[in-house]
Amino acid sequence: MAAPKTPVQFYFDFISPFGYFASLRIDELARRHGREVEWTSMLLGVSVLKVMGLPPIVELPLKGLYVINDAMRYARQHEVPFERPASSPTSRPVEAGRAFAWARELDPASAKRLAGRIFESYFVHCLDIAQDSVLGACVTASGLSWQAFKTARAEGRPADLLRRNVDDSIQRGVFGSPFFIVDGESFFGVEKLSVVEDWLATGGW
Amino acid sequence: MAAPKTPVQFYFDFISPFGYFASLRIDELARRHGREVEWTSMLLGVSVLKVMGLPPIVELPLKGLYVINDAMRYARQHEVPFERPASSPTSRPVEAGRAFAWARELDPASAKRLAGRIFESYFVHCLDIAQDSVLGACVTASGLSWQAFKTARAEGRPADLLRRNVDDSIQRGVFGSPFFIVDGESFFGVEKLSVVEDWLATGGW
Repeated sequence: MAAPKTPVQFYFDFISPFGYFASLRIDELARRHGREVEWTSMLLGVSVLKVMGLPPIVELPLKGLYVINDAMRYARQHEVPFERPASSPTSRPVEAGRAFAWARELDPASAKRLAGRIFESYFVHCLDIAQDSVLGACVTASGLSWQAFKTARAEGRPADLLRRNVDDSIQRGVFGSPFFIVDGESFFGVEKLSVVEDWLATGGW
Repeated sequence: MAAPKTPVQFYFDFISPFGYFASLRIDELARRHGREVEWTSMLLGVSVLKVMGLPPIVELPLKGLYVINDAMRYARQHEVPFERPASSPTSRPVEAGRAFAWARELDPASAKRLAGRIFESYFVHCLDIAQDSVLGACVTASGLSWQAFKTARAEGRPADLLRRNVDDSIQRGVFGSPFFIVDGESFFGVEKLSVVEDWLATGGW
């Protein structure tokens, strides 16, 4: 009997538009090639960019304006709901990342639903996902218990899990969102999904 | 009579592997949609990255190793000759850029042949394109006069042209190699060529 194929690893930051876009495609793409996907939330701004010594991308001269236009252009081309204006205040993604890490330990399928709700709240409804009222609604709508999350949070478990996920992602060389690892091979950016698919289809080259 | 379509703008740095890869595809891609391509050499390391306040990409933690692997993987997938090892010394691209800017003013078709020779010398034959012996062979093989270049260089014309091209590229928001501008719309990276093609085919969205 053949060994089961290893899952595709998918890393994202909740305030990354391209992470959101990738989240809408990666499971179906992997399924076409008989693969599961493990989702991991990481923290670009408060972790990876510090390791790299870089400012947030939208603050970069030249590139900052480019990526905002690029995100809007992607959304139009792929007909993805995407309403968040560039002028909106940026949420801190830490609490959302913690809730996701906690949910993933309980049930990966519920955690993916939660991630979908969080992305939608932030990028479609333009809500502040750092607020308990917003995050609580996402947790509840995903079939999880907000009370159970609050209890876990008081004990520090979600923060520990997220910290471990972030440290682990940096260990694996993850430096952006979205980021994919397929059988040890790393791919950065939503444009790489077609290369990820080629890799899965052919077994690599 | 319909106005002729504006040419696609293609910006590249001679020491950018992805600029090299794009140079092998962009003209044919544009031709399929009835477009010419104007090539412009710019300077990533000595100009754009200073404007952005960034170190060279291969020196970045996490991302540096990634891009080297990504370039080798692209070359294998697309069967592009690419021999230059990551351990080779990096050439300064300034003289090559000047020669290209000078050639482009004389004859854009010869300049494209020159760019092809320079990329091949650097990425396939692993030569130092900052050396007159290497650059001179590229100029001659492209049907241009090395003596004419040396005369123009002594008068400062190639340096002026390159400086103007670099300043102009920054004005237009070019921050990486390869970079494409189609009817005012900007696209960064070789992975964006399929999006450039969609844009040309549909007229944009």
